[in-house]
Amino acid sequence: MKGEPVFLRRIHAYTMRGKGLGYVRGCIYLENGVIIGVGEDACSRGSSSGIVIDGNWRMIVLPGFMDIHMHTPLVLLRGLAQDLPEIEWMHKAISPLARWMNRWHLAAGSRLAVLEALLSGTTLFGDYGSEIGFLLEEVYRPLGLKAAATRSINALAEPMSRLNLRKPYPLDEERGFKGLEDAVRLAEKYSFEKHGVKVLIGPQAVDMVPLNVVKEAYRAAEDLDTLIHMHVAQGGREAMQIKARYGTSTVRLLARHGLLSPRLLAAHCHYASDEELGMMARRGVAMASCQSSIALIDGVVPPLVRYLELGGRAALGTDQAAGNNNQSILAELKIAALLNKTRHRDPTVLPAWRLLRLATREAAEILGLEKHVGSIEEGKRADMVVFDLKAPTLAPVLEKPLRNIAFNLVYAARGHEVKYVFIDGKPVVEEGRPTILDAERVVEEAQKAAEDLVEKGGAEYLAEDSHLVKKWREGLF
Amino acid sequence: MKGEPVFLRRIHAYTMRGKGLGYVRGCIYLENGVIIGVGEDACSRGSSSGIVIDGNWRMIVLPGFMDIHMHTPLVLLRGLAQDLPEIEWMHKAISPLARWMNRWHLAAGSRLAVLEALLSGTTLFGDYGSEIGFLLEEVYRPLGLKAAATRSINALAEPMSRLNLRKPYPLDEERGFKGLEDAVRLAEKYSFEKHGVKVLIGPQAVDMVPLNVVKEAYRAAEDLDTLIHMHVAQGGREAMQIKARYGTSTVRLLARHGLLSPRLLAAHCHYASDEELGMMARRGVAMASCQSSIALIDGVVPPLVRYLELGGRAALGTDQAAGNNNQSILAELKIAALLNKTRHRDPTVLPAWRLLRLATREAAEILGLEKHVGSIEEGKRADMVVFDLKAPTLAPVLEKPLRNIAFNLVYAARGHEVKYVFIDGKPVVEEGRPTILDAERVVEEAQKAAEDLVEKGGAEYLAEDSHLVKKWREGLF
Repeated sequence: MKGEPVFLRRIHAYTMRGKGLGYVRGCIYLENGVIIGVGEDACSRGSSSGIVIDGNWRMIVLPGFMDIHMHTPLVLLRGLAQDLPEIEWMHKAISPLARWMNRWHLAAGSRLAVLEALLSGTTLFGDYGSEIGFLLEEVYRPLGLKAAATRSINALAEPMSRLNLRKPYPLDEERGFKGLEDAVRLAEKYSFEKHGVKVLIGPQAVDMVPLNVVKEAYRAAEDLDTLIHMHVAQGGREAMQIKARYGTSTVRLLARHGLLSPRLLAAHCHYASDEELGMMARRGVAMASCQSSIALIDGVVPPLVRYLELGGRAALGTDQAAGNNNQSILAELKIAALLNKTRHRDPTVLPAWRLLRLATREAAEILGLEKHVGSIEEGKRADMVVFDLKAPTLAPVLEKPLRNIAFNLVYAARGHEVKYVFIDGKPVVEEGRPTILDAERVVEEAQKAAEDLVEKGGAEYLAEDSHLVKKWREGLF
Repeated sequence: MKGEPVFLRRIHAYTMRGKGLGYVRGCIYLENGVIIGVGEDACSRGSSSGIVIDGNWRMIVLPGFMDIHMHTPLVLLRGLAQDLPEIEWMHKAISPLARWMNRWHLAAGSRLAVLEALLSGTTLFGDYGSEIGFLLEEVYRPLGLKAAATRSINALAEPMSRLNLRKPYPLDEERGFKGLEDAVRLAEKYSFEKHGVKVLIGPQAVDMVPLNVVKEAYRAAEDLDTLIHMHVAQGGREAMQIKARYGTSTVRLLARHGLLSPRLLAAHCHYASDEELGMMARRGVAMASCQSSIALIDGVVPPLVRYLELGGRAALGTDQAAGNNNQSILAELKIAALLNKTRHRDPTVLPAWRLLRLATREAAEILGLEKHVGSIEEGKRADMVVFDLKAPTLAPVLEKPLRNIAFNLVYAARGHEVKYVFIDGKPVVEEGRPTILDAERVVEEAQKAAEDLVEKGGAEYLAEDSHLVKKWREGLF
């Protein structure tokens, strides 16, 4: 899909070149989905054919945002798993409903999550799940979207709801190897250059997959030159399991077996100690940090600033809308800033410019995709988001005494200021509306799928009698 | 201004009746700016004339949000005062520019802030400043907006920028009494019943106003049956000043002089100890809590949950866009939840339903306006916000196993889901667009006013060489 040339003129741009935001002004010219020219020089290109957008100095262009960790189908459970104790979140709110999900639910949910993310400027989707191969063929590929998709591998021998949390979970090694085989097949099927899809290998977490399967997954990732994407130190249940089975902590277990390496993209890590974070950083582990999600589910600020200070690499994820409750990386930026500023009692940490880099270039680097995406440079794929600076939330636009645009994008933008989103030079959002999806239909389909889920699992959800269900019975909402 | 009758049918509503959100479904009927009927019963009213809105069970109506603490004109400095140390915020970023503000700047800024707030559902504006009388006549009254407006009183004998922070500020008692006289005159001029305006008396803070002026202000507030709205325990500078002048803390000083009372609306309070918060709560002081603002400027979570647990009354404010960087109470809700959940390491604190009450009914109660606004009940003024539940961020809409709407409004809505806003039954926002303001013109005027300010104060702003200016010189953004 090549599409028309695109010429943007009289625009501001944060290109992410260099160590900061790489501001340039002038023009951007795209052809065949690739960025051909950026800056004043590109203005001479003009274009008699194709799409011409005149920013009138009231638009700014950024590389599209990358959401490094998502579980998109769970958006169907939006608003059903907040304000309850962490220990109840999975067992009493998510599982009773999620276990009824079939492929119809998965696709309907995923499309809704993708729609929401797209409208606030996300162009690369770090989706994670066991049915990721299906979602790639059903959702991502037909829509021409880019994904860093993780095929999760889980070797629990029984459904989660039936596990005794206090004893080491029974693990089914065969199930683990089977999942790994599928993951490898999937990774061999796609290349980012050709399909816009990079497949990551995802042992769910070391409490749910036998160590020999995890080790084999690392070898496979090495062969395939891809990443291991694994939940690490994500909660008390995991800590208890690892302690019971191996007598140590997750991070130390991984260290002992040589599994802390630049090959690892570790999600969450909020149960890792500072010393363990140091071990991870020194060994080149990258972190997928889901600030809102962990804050809402666990009441904890994930250690993003600490990890960056220790020299670690990190990028941001929205996780799932059944926790965080939304899928906008843009929304994550202000929340990440405030959570970390207050955690460290220092308003200077995690400044706006750094957050915009975490959500773009640094995410691309972590995924090993920086040659293709993550910055606005000649030869890169034209994945870009264009903000309307005439929106009331982004006014005034000042370049003196200093340029205020980055602060307003991070601390004031709400999402509806996204005017265009380009993927491979194709406008997938135009004037704030999706061109590749019928928004109303996506919402209606998700509505139906969600209603079906709660029809099937609703009684069990209520029977679990969670803190939330109790409040519901009090008639509070 | 009476306007047409309005009939909303097939809608959900959170009325704020009772102890929770007071959910009802059916119809709402408005006449002459007043709510006439709510619920199934109101459906028989129908209406052959006037505005009819069919929600098709995909709209929810709430009382309009109340922003209890704002400094609207400062929106002109949006994006120029973030990510810098607290000690630099006022002196090195705000003052060099704000001191050039004339009435043109004030009105232009205020209109932009009001526009932004209105579009995300705010219907009552807790604006605070010395020129509030001017803004009431220039902005609020002509637009038919409701305000709980505070005339601030400041008795500093010299401009802030010239003060020695380590010695007690020289105070000009006469200036203080003069300000109080103006405030009293203003309070006598308006009534909420007639003008939709309640004037509060605003000694800025006890470090900036002599105690005898503050005491006289309390007596005046008593006579006028209004509130004292004062910044209390808002920072290290204030603590140092009060210690130097009175040998104690702000809260203890107020207690000693009998100034902790239900008459006091205390803003921020993040420097108050738990013991002091207890003193305030027991004496009936209400709190104006500006979560994002204090988190961004100070790197501190203001003690909202702690205060509520102690039995205190509280409501939310956006403060100023030169700190928080936006003016949406809706945006404050998720941030308040996350900051407090992580501060207390407890995901159950400050649940969605409570946040919606804080932003509506509890704010009205604090302001003594609950007979008029803050809930959707027969006889109340028709100040309401209508959300489009078909927006991708608010889908799916479920009523089983429990109603998920409140969680989605708080944790997923971004502001653009606001479809209608009514003030006194008049649609001031329709299909997400303002009817009482030309948005483009407001933005352009604010742009010009901001450019004028930075023209005048920009050199001094840069000369202050703040942390932010240093980063700017590094070319990072």
